[in-house]
Amino acid sequence: MRKERIAVDMDEVMADSIARFQAWHWRDFRAELSREALHGRPMREAVAADRWPTVQQYPHAPGFFEDLPVMEHSQTVLRQLAARYELFVASAAMEFPGSFRHKYEWLQTHFPFIPWQHYVFCGDKSILAADYLIDDNAYNLRAFRGEGILFSAPHNAGETGFRRANDWLEVARMFL
Amino acid sequence: MRKERIAVDMDEVMADSIARFQAWHWRDFRAELSREALHGRPMREAVAADRWPTVQQYPHAPGFFEDLPVMEHSQTVLRQLAARYELFVASAAMEFPGSFRHKYEWLQTHFPFIPWQHYVFCGDKSILAADYLIDDNAYNLRAFRGEGILFSAPHNAGETGFRRANDWLEVARMFL
Repeated sequence: MRKERIAVDMDEVMADSIARFQAWHWRDFRAELSREALHGRPMREAVAADRWPTVQQYPHAPGFFEDLPVMEHSQTVLRQLAARYELFVASAAMEFPGSFRHKYEWLQTHFPFIPWQHYVFCGDKSILAADYLIDDNAYNLRAFRGEGILFSAPHNAGETGFRRANDWLEVARMFL
Repeated sequence: MRKERIAVDMDEVMADSIARFQAWHWRDFRAELSREALHGRPMREAVAADRWPTVQQYPHAPGFFEDLPVMEHSQTVLRQLAARYELFVASAAMEFPGSFRHKYEWLQTHFPFIPWQHYVFCGDKSILAADYLIDDNAYNLRAFRGEGILFSAPHNAGETGFRRANDWLEVARMFL
């Protein structure tokens, strides 16, 4: 029997990119960008209007995706998923061409049990042939042809259209 | 009605990577690597054994994928395909992480009518959700879940398992 296939998004699912936004926001403005401020709305609404042109450029800047913190429990749970499912990593990295190399190296470093053959850098996630996609962006799940699992992130707090996993332990309970 | 979706490989289909192998082989050995020598066999069998360790490293070297020649008629035909089909570019670029940036820029330069949202850099092409894949590697077509079209390249001359397109004009006759 063919194993079911799970595709997993990187930013805010495997990698804590919000931590980088917060650190750089502090570096540039000596002001906190709190998770509470990000709750239930896109970042451009959480950031002060005069700071947004700067903050918007962060993911395009060199180093943004380098050495991002790993999301809690993601390594343990993904290692177990990799044993039972066909596991792919699917990042919408095409939006940030400067991120390719760092994302690749980050995966090799922190998730060595996922082979590079199972990395996908794309734009539109409708291209993924998988049974499940775990992603924090509802628009990616809407494009996806399989079953979407919304991974909780501050910005998606109000989203109700998908089965939700609040953290990796909840993903484990769903799939293991 | 949903448009049918065509995924297209890059190397030896859109981009003439053999030309780069030939040029570098000449640069390093002052000896020709002819298309006749490449006919019906993998490159490692066409290259002299003492040269293979060097040649094998070419795609890993900086600049290999930069400014590759564009395959004849590919721009005209792909522009027409993009009007009638959902067109994706799908490269097994993960094998050569140094290629990401050059491949991205090459597509932007030579195929500006294909949006970056429709680029896919992957390893295993079984991840592609598309109706057709045009590719010169039979193993990619075997992995693919839709219908594979084998794009003729010297190395695949003996391959009989797939519908074949000898050049872009033949692709046009199939799809337009």
